[in-house]
Amino acid sequence: MGGRAYRATVDTDRLAQQLSAVVGPDHVLRDPALRASYETDFTGRYRGRARLVVRPADTAQVAQVLRRCHAAGVPVVAQGGNTGLVGGSVPTPDGGEVVLSLRRLDGIGAVDTAVGQVTVGAGVVLSDLHRRVAAHGLEFGVDLAARDSATLGGMIATNAGGERVVRYGTTRANVVGLEAVLADGTVLNRLAGLPKDNTGYDLTNLLIGSEGTLAVVTRARLRLVPRLPERVTALVGLDSLEAALDVVARLRLLDSLELAEFFMAEGLALVLETSGLPAPFRTAYPVYLLVECAGRHDPAEELAGVLDTAGPGETAVALADADRRRLAAYRERHTESINAAGVPLKLDVTVPLAELPGFVADLPGVLAGRGRPYLFGHLAEGNLHVNLLQVAAEDEEAVTGAVLERVAAVGGSISAEHGVGRAKARYLHLSRSDAEIAVMRSVKAALDPAGVLNPGVVLAEDTALFGRDFRL
Amino acid sequence: MGGRAYRATVDTDRLAQQLSAVVGPDHVLRDPALRASYETDFTGRYRGRARLVVRPADTAQVAQVLRRCHAAGVPVVAQGGNTGLVGGSVPTPDGGEVVLSLRRLDGIGAVDTAVGQVTVGAGVVLSDLHRRVAAHGLEFGVDLAARDSATLGGMIATNAGGERVVRYGTTRANVVGLEAVLADGTVLNRLAGLPKDNTGYDLTNLLIGSEGTLAVVTRARLRLVPRLPERVTALVGLDSLEAALDVVARLRLLDSLELAEFFMAEGLALVLETSGLPAPFRTAYPVYLLVECAGRHDPAEELAGVLDTAGPGETAVALADADRRRLAAYRERHTESINAAGVPLKLDVTVPLAELPGFVADLPGVLAGRGRPYLFGHLAEGNLHVNLLQVAAEDEEAVTGAVLERVAAVGGSISAEHGVGRAKARYLHLSRSDAEIAVMRSVKAALDPAGVLNPGVVLAEDTALFGRDFRL
Repeated sequence: MGGRAYRATVDTDRLAQQLSAVVGPDHVLRDPALRASYETDFTGRYRGRARLVVRPADTAQVAQVLRRCHAAGVPVVAQGGNTGLVGGSVPTPDGGEVVLSLRRLDGIGAVDTAVGQVTVGAGVVLSDLHRRVAAHGLEFGVDLAARDSATLGGMIATNAGGERVVRYGTTRANVVGLEAVLADGTVLNRLAGLPKDNTGYDLTNLLIGSEGTLAVVTRARLRLVPRLPERVTALVGLDSLEAALDVVARLRLLDSLELAEFFMAEGLALVLETSGLPAPFRTAYPVYLLVECAGRHDPAEELAGVLDTAGPGETAVALADADRRRLAAYRERHTESINAAGVPLKLDVTVPLAELPGFVADLPGVLAGRGRPYLFGHLAEGNLHVNLLQVAAEDEEAVTGAVLERVAAVGGSISAEHGVGRAKARYLHLSRSDAEIAVMRSVKAALDPAGVLNPGVVLAEDTALFGRDFRL
Repeated sequence: MGGRAYRATVDTDRLAQQLSAVVGPDHVLRDPALRASYETDFTGRYRGRARLVVRPADTAQVAQVLRRCHAAGVPVVAQGGNTGLVGGSVPTPDGGEVVLSLRRLDGIGAVDTAVGQVTVGAGVVLSDLHRRVAAHGLEFGVDLAARDSATLGGMIATNAGGERVVRYGTTRANVVGLEAVLADGTVLNRLAGLPKDNTGYDLTNLLIGSEGTLAVVTRARLRLVPRLPERVTALVGLDSLEAALDVVARLRLLDSLELAEFFMAEGLALVLETSGLPAPFRTAYPVYLLVECAGRHDPAEELAGVLDTAGPGETAVALADADRRRLAAYRERHTESINAAGVPLKLDVTVPLAELPGFVADLPGVLAGRGRPYLFGHLAEGNLHVNLLQVAAEDEEAVTGAVLERVAAVGGSISAEHGVGRAKARYLHLSRSDAEIAVMRSVKAALDPAGVLNPGVVLAEDTALFGRDFRL
């Protein structure tokens, strides 16, 4: 917060000149029309105003940009594909920040097949990485719906999750080293990718998930996994969430489970209405489970072995790619179908599996009529995407608070995979104790004493100092 | 280092009284005979003198002990099974520290089979954990030779590696949350075990591998993996390390590889001499590779598919447990066989795979006759255990420096899995840049401003202030 007092004295012309000397004048954007796409997030919910947008080409330029902003006391918001949902990658409305776009750092290094690793720039788009490594019989273990826009730098800054966490973990588990630049321009480089390296504190994991508040990630060394040739997908209609959780618990004992998604009757009805897809089964079920298993051996038999004892319900199994995609579409089309029906209030939470059926049953009571819930998500991790339609603008804050408080009360997390950003900074105390927040603040002060990296993200600023509050 | 100046004024009698009131008089050890086993490490190489040894029973007692030591400015060395090899868990020779033994925190919680997790106390011994979870068809992914003594707390503090890292990662990858106590007695609790939880900085990973210098781990939530029923082990004699690395690179593309160990002709000769085991093959080979694959399906065929094209050499394959153990013994008996031949200087390093054959070929030149090398280790990660016999006491420091400098020169890590401890603190700059060490010092100052937690471990103290230097 110390970096805020002298903002009024910053000479933006002079800073723009300095930064132009670093990155070239074409890559310092001042024109509001050119800045616009960097100032508004993916959902349109968060709009800010950048002092400048700067687009460095490499790590050395990032370091120089940060050094100059730090010297000028100007806050910096690092931005990748800008696909976040919590307002962590856009500037605030008061226009004080420089937006540091990492998208030009888009180099993909040679794929090291001997150790199964590759080094990528922060600006590499996920689907480009997928394509590059597939040619070597390898895969990157993280995949998510925003794959055509999300950058690896942003995924690392937010520890992105996605659909395959049950097998490969979150982004954290798939990063073996980072290069990053501290607030003052100091470069930390840890890209050797050594799988065993116990030489002091794990700064890589400290930076992963820190949402641009401790350092700016410029490159990453990623772990790759073998591409598995045999794959089977199944959609199961079930009577209850308890039944779905029971199936997942038994599938987890196989070594082939890769995906365990769920959705519910209300969401499927919306999908069928919007998409024109045929209903998956003749009967409607309260809960649907979409699972995928993969391996070097055909996992269909072991999957069938579990599903055959799944209790009342129906199962559709697909082996061919087109058929698998057809089943997956019922889950994947939820987001667009919900968006077609209105602008949802989206909350992304984890609920402990044992508490999950009770949480879902109690949700209407928590909402008390202030919104219509559509639930889907990653059942293996208890990760619910709570989409609420028809929430009145004046109820949004109260509804958000009520849902997140219930999540916390049952021992869950108020942010499963989207991060805290600015949107949830005020609710952080629901998931982290005062002692943890105090340690986080001391770590922030240790790495960014001037407080110039993404202020107000993760750790709420004193709004009296910060000026205008950033509304959820 | 601020905590050191007033050590002379500490009233040990008074402190012992205060700590007795917390843990009971039977668990504050002052008698040198009772203290002895806590003051000497596993190898006998590190011997110190504790002011007191304190054995709390639970987290609340740990917090009170730390609060009182903090108030008195007395440094604390946390200790688990005391199986470390780098002097990180024993007091210094000057006798200023309280040794905080965590062994009584040995509770194992209910095994949660639905999510595959269990909560354990820091003092739980690894083999006890293995036995407990096996009954549920599950395993803990980390295994190592010291399994009958090593505690989970110590494994977490040092991010223990072991033999199955190629499949399950190091301890870090198998811990989903921690409870830990800060230097001032503040308890951090993060045991919910939520697999997706992006709510701020990852303090759990910051503490893992911090070797008792940032906080004292009291409990951990662990990830468990399915126990795989089908298992095959093979021993392969090969002409070169290059050939062995080529086999490992191809095995890595299977999803069943669990272990890839190597040893060399010199080590095998010592093992055969000491153990009386028969030679594994009629011919002697320069390099031996021990691999294991496991899965739900018998992996023998896919393993054979790779080994059949492994080039000149011989292969022995075993499926039955007794036969598999017979093959593994050639690797496992290295440590005892080397110890039987003398007191080795042991260095534990990672070398990038591409550099590994060159590093091994150059080693005699680096040693320049000052010791006889026996190499073995975890080939999939380039983790070499360099055991040197016949190093003269006056050469130890120079030899250690020369080997670690060569490791650093080829881009390796000076500590693969044993940690930095006191032994390698002076060499930390070989693996971490000045910028990284500066960040580490700022993090240490943020979490332990009085510097009472394991001072001199990981980050070297100013020896002028510290008094007596702790010799390697």
